[in-house]
Amino acid sequence: MTSQAVPEPSAELLRLATAVRRAAIDLGQTTDQQRQQALAAMAAALQAHADRIAAANAADLEQAAAEGLAPALVARLKLDQAKLAGAIEGVRQVADLQDPLGSRQLHRELSERLVLERITVPLGVLGVIFEARPDAVIQIASLAIRSGNGAILKGGSEANRTNQAVMAALQEGLAHSVVSADALALLTTRQESLALLRLDGLVDLIIPRGSNELVRFIQDNTRIPVLGHADGVCHLYVDAEADCGQALSIAIDSKTQYPAACNAIETLLVHEAIAERFLKDAIPAFAGVGVELRGDQACMALGVTHPADEADWGREYLDLILAVRVVPDLETALEHIRRHGSRHTEAIATANRTTAERFLRAVDSAGVYHNCSTRFADGFRYGFGAEVGISTQTLPPRGPVGLEGLVTYRYRLRGDGHLAADFATGEPQFSHRDLPL
Amino acid sequence: MTSQAVPEPSAELLRLATAVRRAAIDLGQTTDQQRQQALAAMAAALQAHADRIAAANAADLEQAAAEGLAPALVARLKLDQAKLAGAIEGVRQVADLQDPLGSRQLHRELSERLVLERITVPLGVLGVIFEARPDAVIQIASLAIRSGNGAILKGGSEANRTNQAVMAALQEGLAHSVVSADALALLTTRQESLALLRLDGLVDLIIPRGSNELVRFIQDNTRIPVLGHADGVCHLYVDAEADCGQALSIAIDSKTQYPAACNAIETLLVHEAIAERFLKDAIPAFAGVGVELRGDQACMALGVTHPADEADWGREYLDLILAVRVVPDLETALEHIRRHGSRHTEAIATANRTTAERFLRAVDSAGVYHNCSTRFADGFRYGFGAEVGISTQTLPPRGPVGLEGLVTYRYRLRGDGHLAADFATGEPQFSHRDLPL
Repeated sequence: MTSQAVPEPSAELLRLATAVRRAAIDLGQTTDQQRQQALAAMAAALQAHADRIAAANAADLEQAAAEGLAPALVARLKLDQAKLAGAIEGVRQVADLQDPLGSRQLHRELSERLVLERITVPLGVLGVIFEARPDAVIQIASLAIRSGNGAILKGGSEANRTNQAVMAALQEGLAHSVVSADALALLTTRQESLALLRLDGLVDLIIPRGSNELVRFIQDNTRIPVLGHADGVCHLYVDAEADCGQALSIAIDSKTQYPAACNAIETLLVHEAIAERFLKDAIPAFAGVGVELRGDQACMALGVTHPADEADWGREYLDLILAVRVVPDLETALEHIRRHGSRHTEAIATANRTTAERFLRAVDSAGVYHNCSTRFADGFRYGFGAEVGISTQTLPPRGPVGLEGLVTYRYRLRGDGHLAADFATGEPQFSHRDLPL
Repeated sequence: MTSQAVPEPSAELLRLATAVRRAAIDLGQTTDQQRQQALAAMAAALQAHADRIAAANAADLEQAAAEGLAPALVARLKLDQAKLAGAIEGVRQVADLQDPLGSRQLHRELSERLVLERITVPLGVLGVIFEARPDAVIQIASLAIRSGNGAILKGGSEANRTNQAVMAALQEGLAHSVVSADALALLTTRQESLALLRLDGLVDLIIPRGSNELVRFIQDNTRIPVLGHADGVCHLYVDAEADCGQALSIAIDSKTQYPAACNAIETLLVHEAIAERFLKDAIPAFAGVGVELRGDQACMALGVTHPADEADWGREYLDLILAVRVVPDLETALEHIRRHGSRHTEAIATANRTTAERFLRAVDSAGVYHNCSTRFADGFRYGFGAEVGISTQTLPPRGPVGLEGLVTYRYRLRGDGHLAADFATGEPQFSHRDLPL
């Protein structure tokens, strides 16, 4: 995708996006129960068309085999009965999540009979671009409808047949609900997915799911807000006063529990006062779980065999490789993180509470952890019930984002003929009295 | 500004921005009291240097007179003793506002001894670009420091001498506090203010204060999030069941209380069932307060003398001109607002509560009002104590934005050696138990 220019949207794409937007306006005014019903209907339709979806997926897999697609991609492309059943169960779980809409965040009497509310409302239309994983269509469609948003989805072209069969089922489901089937749309060509980036005013949020390159290309080529992150370069700092055994377990879990995840650590910073003691156990332990350590000179002197060069700091391996650096103090560790981190998640291992609190205050990442694995940076683990993505932007929503990332708010003010000019003369006056939420 | 290309930042600008960022990191870790003290010191230094500031302003005014600056601009440029005293009082008021930092938005036990918090933290560094109004430097600097943010400011070049004298005083004030004087910086050249738009990674939020053209240019030329709005095209819909007298008062207040404001109405939509009765009084009333009505054909038939053409819908007059259209029903009014509005603030005048609620649900603007003037769309009137700007973006912060628009949040997770792998095996389990905030 990155080698292409972003084209103007075609008349057809504009028509489609306008239809989604219109459907989304009505969808945004539905009740909690109506949206739950729509999700139930989507789940039922997926189940009813399981065979058709399986056949479409078999055709995609056949073509993938003929074209020699890499085994990892084939595995992601595959949507067998078990995976589909899991995805359908996921739709039902999303239906059970608390309604993110209509929540009153502020309730204030501005003056007598002039009352302000701030209420959560849907964003409008989501644009979702992801790589070949047909179950993602199901997950994203259910999150969108649950939160009252229309969605325009573009999946990897290797999964086109499967995605179309899935989308047909989802739309048939919606047709058995009060929600218009137009609320969901699937794009199938690369040109369309590029032009989607130009639909400011019709699309309110872009959610990319895929490689760093995909995310960065999208961030660089759209004015629409983008939810997500390119890099996940997480750090663990092992302080002089760390419990060595605990720190090592945390390091191993943070690196190996799922090395391809964005919340896996890529660099270990070790205080020099504990480096010898820590590395004596860490070097064989990491070797035992297949992790290659790449160390600075101080690490090499303590037995690390692969050297790290400047390019290793800040590098996202997404693999069983870990850069290690010995630092003279906390300040140097903080400076290293500021310079090389991606503001995703950083952790400190220390028994000293004061040092821990300094770290938690000074590190400006979406997640700052004390004595636990960075792998907890996840919407499900945080108890959000769903994860839309993890954002490394500064502005909210930041970190793991649940359904609340798909809503915004609106102010409602109800009066009885109130005029600003009257207040300018000093009579009546503002009371600014908060009312119960 | 709009005719220029955006240049790469100079080495000097990068150095300056880096210094602001470093100062902001320390500033972000100060206590509420320390930041209040810093604001008190800023206020005291402004007072101490009032004469120097007045002299600088006199020199700016002299040059403005020599160059034949428009009287309205001269009035904005002028910073006399009374205005300065008001601005200093403003700094003290901002000091008294509730601390927006360190507020706990979420507090949850994920599992035994694994506790998650979500805490408000500063954004980092604000980039503020505004037109010649030296008191804005004082206001913005105080909001930035109060919220723990560094700020890089660029004012209109007509006010350069005044702005420099103000900034020198503010920095001297900071030097008498724990906050580094580097936390505030002033740019004085146009090249620098353009290059500011390229400082992604060093600047977290751009706040433009000025003309629609300025705001639009900035939105189109930066990847940094922009807080604000270009257009404010607000509508009032007078329903068939409106109280004609009340609706007319609201219309006049919404148009005339401050016609140059973004929350003034630009278009009036009148239900056909009430149009004749409403316009009979409205036409002379608007004429009496100097407002020119521009009507569609139906309005012309009812006595409006100036015709509206297609370009009048959605136009922001910022003047004593009001477009008027007769609509057959609420749906047509909603469609008109969707097509021509700027999603700022829209109001309905009606005695029918059901119709009002339909309007409040269906209109997707930052503010939706029933039976009151659109002029209430304002941070002070909402009781925020300060207004950073009004945002017409879909994503939060939306509408009038107080200090909360200058903060974000961070997740803190504290554990005791917790590993993700242990949870993957099903023992221990997540409790996701909310704790008191």
